[in-house]
Amino acid sequence: MSTSTDSFAMPAGPDPGEIFSAFTAFHRSGALKAAVELGIFGAIAGGAQTFEAIAERCGAAPRGVRILADYLVVNGFLTKEGAGAGARYALTPDAAIFLDPSSPAYMGNAVEFLMSPTMLEAFADITGAVRRGGAVDRGAVLAPDHDIWVRFARAMAGPALFVARLLAIALDAPAGKPWKVLDVAAGHGMFGVTLASENPNARVVAVDWNNVLEVARENARKAGIEGRFSTIPGSAFEVDLGTAYDIVLIPNFLHHFDPPGCEAFLRRVHAALAPGGRAITIEFMPDDDRVTPPAAFALVMLVATPGGDAYTAAELQRMAANAGFARNEVRDLAPSFHRAMISYKE
Amino acid sequence: MSTSTDSFAMPAGPDPGEIFSAFTAFHRSGALKAAVELGIFGAIAGGAQTFEAIAERCGAAPRGVRILADYLVVNGFLTKEGAGAGARYALTPDAAIFLDPSSPAYMGNAVEFLMSPTMLEAFADITGAVRRGGAVDRGAVLAPDHDIWVRFARAMAGPALFVARLLAIALDAPAGKPWKVLDVAAGHGMFGVTLASENPNARVVAVDWNNVLEVARENARKAGIEGRFSTIPGSAFEVDLGTAYDIVLIPNFLHHFDPPGCEAFLRRVHAALAPGGRAITIEFMPDDDRVTPPAAFALVMLVATPGGDAYTAAELQRMAANAGFARNEVRDLAPSFHRAMISYKE
Repeated sequence: MSTSTDSFAMPAGPDPGEIFSAFTAFHRSGALKAAVELGIFGAIAGGAQTFEAIAERCGAAPRGVRILADYLVVNGFLTKEGAGAGARYALTPDAAIFLDPSSPAYMGNAVEFLMSPTMLEAFADITGAVRRGGAVDRGAVLAPDHDIWVRFARAMAGPALFVARLLAIALDAPAGKPWKVLDVAAGHGMFGVTLASENPNARVVAVDWNNVLEVARENARKAGIEGRFSTIPGSAFEVDLGTAYDIVLIPNFLHHFDPPGCEAFLRRVHAALAPGGRAITIEFMPDDDRVTPPAAFALVMLVATPGGDAYTAAELQRMAANAGFARNEVRDLAPSFHRAMISYKE
Repeated sequence: MSTSTDSFAMPAGPDPGEIFSAFTAFHRSGALKAAVELGIFGAIAGGAQTFEAIAERCGAAPRGVRILADYLVVNGFLTKEGAGAGARYALTPDAAIFLDPSSPAYMGNAVEFLMSPTMLEAFADITGAVRRGGAVDRGAVLAPDHDIWVRFARAMAGPALFVARLLAIALDAPAGKPWKVLDVAAGHGMFGVTLASENPNARVVAVDWNNVLEVARENARKAGIEGRFSTIPGSAFEVDLGTAYDIVLIPNFLHHFDPPGCEAFLRRVHAALAPGGRAITIEFMPDDDRVTPPAAFALVMLVATPGGDAYTAAELQRMAANAGFARNEVRDLAPSFHRAMISYKE
């Protein structure tokens, strides 16, 4: 240890701030989850301004709400004016749009999937997953009727709608061609539902576990397209998918499986398409370097699946080629980070 | 649901990115913890460049290391050149300084406190803590000899040294006045040890649970000041602290207690000081608005203690005044976010 004051000077560059920020980043997740669960954003949107008023609406302790609300201010989800018991909290513009439950763009319930007990458990031992090279509880989330997928379908429909609309544009859905569409492992069903909303001449068949299809059917009814929407319950790897589809949607599905599994599935899709039909694979699809665009998603597959991955565009194109698709185009779905691979059956 | 393409345009402003980033921020904590536990940074510092080479050194699966390393690249802790199995990873400048175990400024072991099972458990139910207004397991961390404080002492000595050196400057330790110093709830002991390192005429008495004092004694030996370092094991609220101290250090201690507890403790400190002596309270001390400087710390006290808080400078000054200190000056310990309250006994 130095005994001169000269050595106190930290070099201008080095800063452990980002490291400490990462070590405590789980506070941020937990605080936002708590705020959603307690209804903090709704209480403020409904007129409560002081921590005591918010606490009363949320049925929580004033001290607890004061500390949580200040944390949300520091993290950019609330604003605060004044000090002490009279200080007034308000929603930031993004919180008003995405975290007020009365907003049409509400996304707060994404927490029910992203921070579900299944997810938290999978992420509790990343060290073990890295050692083993895959999920600790191998394949658990891929088991039939796992409730994580109902959570997924309920929680992630809102966020998916944005990407689904970008896809509908990319496919020129509003041109109104008569489409027979298959939506595999549909989840919330928003990709198929949105194609049918945008193209009045499209009919959609959705495949997923039956408990999950409940949610997709609800979304089809809400969109007013239930007359052109039907379902096939079961594993997309096993059920009879039917034939002569113009479009098969494969949204955020292949990443759960290893490459042989993906290829086997793509062969099933190829067989289900009409000649000239297209398979649409929607994925994050990082570049060959696997780190751009910001590719944080593979970690979820490492901890939650036995052999899934965030496949690069080139890897998916190779799998599709092996499955019989002669031409496989990749398109950005900007401004989302998703990409679509459009695979043509000759 | 809209049927026109016009409605696809998202307004330029709103962006749920920060919200999703918060919902998944716990991935970031877990990934960095795993990298520290697996020795990823040390393996790279030691010459392993490809994910296969790193995996071999760390005894982990190549697929797991590849996915974790890419995640660390996306999050700014590693760099990557190239693609595929030949891609080469390297440490970012900050990672080389703070995450390579062979670096003198290594801070990776902070994870052992910040993400200890006790902390993770406390943060697992923020909703409950907000409802109740305090820790779920009330006061558990304040129990005698709780092992969390040994973890704290071992993990946080490095980060504390930086603040301790700033304090030593603020007190003009190198001037060499003969000081009798009491360091209460010393933990790693770095505040007292650093004063003694910087002032060869200072003698330090450290108080903490005996299991924690082991660590403080180690640090005193490492600093070569063990001849001027003694200890009093036990609760700082209960043991005989002695008298006639020139300086009493109260580093990051008061935040665990409610205001009456803090005042009672400050009265004990007042009694232990010599006339003209100073009590030095080191805390984050947010401004009156409780949100600047970035005041995320109160949440830790909400979930981990029955009634602790990140007290404002004004609150601490009031407590110290009530405890008998006539003058209480607050100083920034920039560039750290810590502040020191210097309380003078007349």
